[in-house]
Amino acid sequence: MTRERLYLFDTTLRDGQQTPGIDFSVEDKIAIARMLDEFGLDYVEGGYPGANPTDTAFFGRKQTKRARFTAFGMTKRVGISASNDPGLAALLQAQVDAVCFVAKSWDYHVRVALGCTNDENLEAIEASVKAAVGAGREALVDCEHFFDGFKANPDYAIACARTALEAGARWVVLCDTNGGTLPSEVRDIVGKVIAAGIPGENLGIHAHDDTGQAVANSLAAVEAGVRQIQGTLNGIGERCGNANLVSLIPTLMLKPAFADRFEVGISGQALAGIARVSHAFDEILNRAPGEQAPYVGASAFATKAGIHASAIAKEPQTYEHVPPEAVGNRRRVMVSDQGGKANFMAELARRGIDVPRDDSRLDTLITLVKEREARGYAYEGADASFELLACQTLGHVPEFFSVTSFRCMVERRFDANGQLRTVSEAVVKVMIDDEEKMSVAEGNGPVNALDIALRKDLGKFQHEIQDLVLADYKVRILDGGTEAVTRVMIESQDGQGARWRTVGVSNNVIDASFQALMDSIVFKLMKNRQLAGRVAAE
Amino acid sequence: MTRERLYLFDTTLRDGQQTPGIDFSVEDKIAIARMLDEFGLDYVEGGYPGANPTDTAFFGRKQTKRARFTAFGMTKRVGISASNDPGLAALLQAQVDAVCFVAKSWDYHVRVALGCTNDENLEAIEASVKAAVGAGREALVDCEHFFDGFKANPDYAIACARTALEAGARWVVLCDTNGGTLPSEVRDIVGKVIAAGIPGENLGIHAHDDTGQAVANSLAAVEAGVRQIQGTLNGIGERCGNANLVSLIPTLMLKPAFADRFEVGISGQALAGIARVSHAFDEILNRAPGEQAPYVGASAFATKAGIHASAIAKEPQTYEHVPPEAVGNRRRVMVSDQGGKANFMAELARRGIDVPRDDSRLDTLITLVKEREARGYAYEGADASFELLACQTLGHVPEFFSVTSFRCMVERRFDANGQLRTVSEAVVKVMIDDEEKMSVAEGNGPVNALDIALRKDLGKFQHEIQDLVLADYKVRILDGGTEAVTRVMIESQDGQGARWRTVGVSNNVIDASFQALMDSIVFKLMKNRQLAGRVAAE
Repeated sequence: MTRERLYLFDTTLRDGQQTPGIDFSVEDKIAIARMLDEFGLDYVEGGYPGANPTDTAFFGRKQTKRARFTAFGMTKRVGISASNDPGLAALLQAQVDAVCFVAKSWDYHVRVALGCTNDENLEAIEASVKAAVGAGREALVDCEHFFDGFKANPDYAIACARTALEAGARWVVLCDTNGGTLPSEVRDIVGKVIAAGIPGENLGIHAHDDTGQAVANSLAAVEAGVRQIQGTLNGIGERCGNANLVSLIPTLMLKPAFADRFEVGISGQALAGIARVSHAFDEILNRAPGEQAPYVGASAFATKAGIHASAIAKEPQTYEHVPPEAVGNRRRVMVSDQGGKANFMAELARRGIDVPRDDSRLDTLITLVKEREARGYAYEGADASFELLACQTLGHVPEFFSVTSFRCMVERRFDANGQLRTVSEAVVKVMIDDEEKMSVAEGNGPVNALDIALRKDLGKFQHEIQDLVLADYKVRILDGGTEAVTRVMIESQDGQGARWRTVGVSNNVIDASFQALMDSIVFKLMKNRQLAGRVAAE
Repeated sequence: MTRERLYLFDTTLRDGQQTPGIDFSVEDKIAIARMLDEFGLDYVEGGYPGANPTDTAFFGRKQTKRARFTAFGMTKRVGISASNDPGLAALLQAQVDAVCFVAKSWDYHVRVALGCTNDENLEAIEASVKAAVGAGREALVDCEHFFDGFKANPDYAIACARTALEAGARWVVLCDTNGGTLPSEVRDIVGKVIAAGIPGENLGIHAHDDTGQAVANSLAAVEAGVRQIQGTLNGIGERCGNANLVSLIPTLMLKPAFADRFEVGISGQALAGIARVSHAFDEILNRAPGEQAPYVGASAFATKAGIHASAIAKEPQTYEHVPPEAVGNRRRVMVSDQGGKANFMAELARRGIDVPRDDSRLDTLITLVKEREARGYAYEGADASFELLACQTLGHVPEFFSVTSFRCMVERRFDANGQLRTVSEAVVKVMIDDEEKMSVAEGNGPVNALDIALRKDLGKFQHEIQDLVLADYKVRILDGGTEAVTRVMIESQDGQGARWRTVGVSNNVIDASFQALMDSIVFKLMKNRQLAGRVAAE
């Protein structure tokens, strides 16, 4: 039986940016867009070109290879022509495949918020879609407040959708902007829209989680006929968030009720990486992954010892709604972890490191990783540190140099002109081939000073690290309070465009930073010798 | 029109106890049971008497006044009579109103897990229910794996339900034990069960969140005819958790699709306290409340300034799916770089700060906030720093003390025993009433040392800050690399249970931390004088 295609539209970088407390940098956006593209989403909506400097910079070039790169913006203003609207012009200058317009579809909002007539709003939709199509872009129209609008005036809501499609839009997206619509209402209204002649193959759903049902609303809409789902990674988004694609995608791909009828653009292999995608995204947000998250949470396939535990060991499939491996997760039953060794070997093989099952160094490595993860290391988000630890334990890494001591100092005082000034200075002693080198540097803070001093004179290795750049630096306190354990994650890149991430853990932020900086430099030296770097090259 | 009664069954203390990482003490259980009882739930399931000392102690007396206090346990073992089963005897000794038996209803599990015949399982259900009813208890039967069992053998699943009811059970609860059933399947199967002659008024639903649809599954079951919902506070529970009653209850009470047809045992006044119940429960769990939680999260009615903000100010009800006050929450139009004067005045008024629209200090404050937000301050997440800045700008804050200089030092070197050791030390000079005080402290890192030194001797203010505790400390690098701007967010709390958040921004992490620490201390001093703290007191 031929399966119908469902399209997945990611709005992490647009609606997700409306999440209180979340602010993406251009670097964050580039990294996230790449991750979404590689994962296999059909559309990646990047933001709102012209609205702020970050988004304008981000849209300076196309940021995806496979996914349709999409800009979000308003329909043209009423009273001026499409060609004279500067907002629309900015939108059409963005280097994108598709443009998603937000349009009012509730007559009440047309009157109150836009202050124009219903027909003027329809004309704005038509002209905007035509301008986008004329500029060679695929056009989508997000019908804001569609469900509330439909309840108030179904004819006008449908007229908005019809106008968009007749003007050439590929998709009309039904948005539950206030997030309060219930699944039975979504099912009912989508059915009526399709019955009114709007084809389901041109309809999308954009749901919010204000009643905790964004996922259910999205699936109800698909059952009723829509063929595009909008959502975000880990369900971020305005207020309570958007439909969580990380929960939706496994359901679409693994549950027969959907998988037998529909196909999506994501491979089974990519699906097995969805836990990693979800956790990597949380790392970018600098927050701990949700342990109870459907499919990908650490607890999603965990069982406390109890009435089920022994039965699960006997017959896991009758106690698990999907196989955990299918989503890159694993079963966690009590302390003994049966899948451990095989998982490890697979992780190493993925990095080009082959090691026999009975090699005792493999057991040493597993013990070391478990012990360190218990102390707060997060190797899931620090591939380079994991690879380095593996290579060191398996004996593949020379000792390039060692740091015998360092000192950082931060002082805030009044300078000669009576101005408050904060000065940071670091001193580092390094041994290279029995020669001691001492470097000192000032920086914009103790870690920056330490970083500069550490990389100031590495002797014969100095030329090798000239193109090493710290792209990101994140700190997380694991227990709370300034006395707690600190985890530092550093992202580095080099002139060849490779990126790698390293981790350090200590109750001292400087110490943790030092570990992550050291790992980054040593990884770079290994990479230069092709001893490592498959991760970075991926 | 008469509305049908829906019954709410809380299993926070039983299924919620299966949450990885959650372990209730007897005192916790007593506090939670009381909270649930006062809130108005119909049933409070307390645990599993006889299974562990905590539960046995907790069931020593009846813990609720209004709610039916319920014990959970297994049906009698096959091969012995009900009167000779020690487990059943322990269950019937518990001081409860109701007993909820868990029973297999999937023939596969009867064979594999129980190792008995289908008929023996039915006999165990019958005998157990009769024993409970005979002991004067209301009997409920949780049909484990009901939906998977129904798919495999519908006749047997229904036979289990029918046996329980015929033996005198008040309720048969359909459990989605593995959590993977979809709403459309729940609707379909519940419909078939009722069509087979099991009355909906005797049916309950017990859903898990493994596909992110526990709430939707519960509501689908109600639409299909069940009249009891089982769930937990904040959705805790095994694996991905149970149906979240904190999301479900407002939907049942505020959405016409349910509120017009059904009534629950909770008053509108109690509903207006649900945000407090949810947050108090998180306090017992010692975790931060979920900001994006439906209805009760801090962000649930928040909007970042943008295309919606001015419209929301004009017509909030067309942008909010329910009134925030109905669930004890409030509208938050975030202070951010796009916020206008009206937003500012509303935010200030909420904090008890009234300022005339034409006061020039208001313009100064707006300019200051915008300029600081452009530099990286995030006041939307740091209410206390915002309030402090506002009070300072509007002239309401005395200068309690000033810090004239500080110095932090971190040194890593080999100690006398040849061990690598990292030492952090801070020195702070403080002026209080023209008297200079100098303090020095070591800490687990430079920020911790600075924090300890800063709070070591504040002279006459020292006794006021004794109960100040740093609850969380977060660092974010805004541009990437160690040279970038650093934002530090600190969450503080005091002995009265108040929590407030402060922010510091600098290109130096120590400087940024210092600002946030200072704001926290000054806010506490203001709060003690009732000059501030409406935020903290909420």
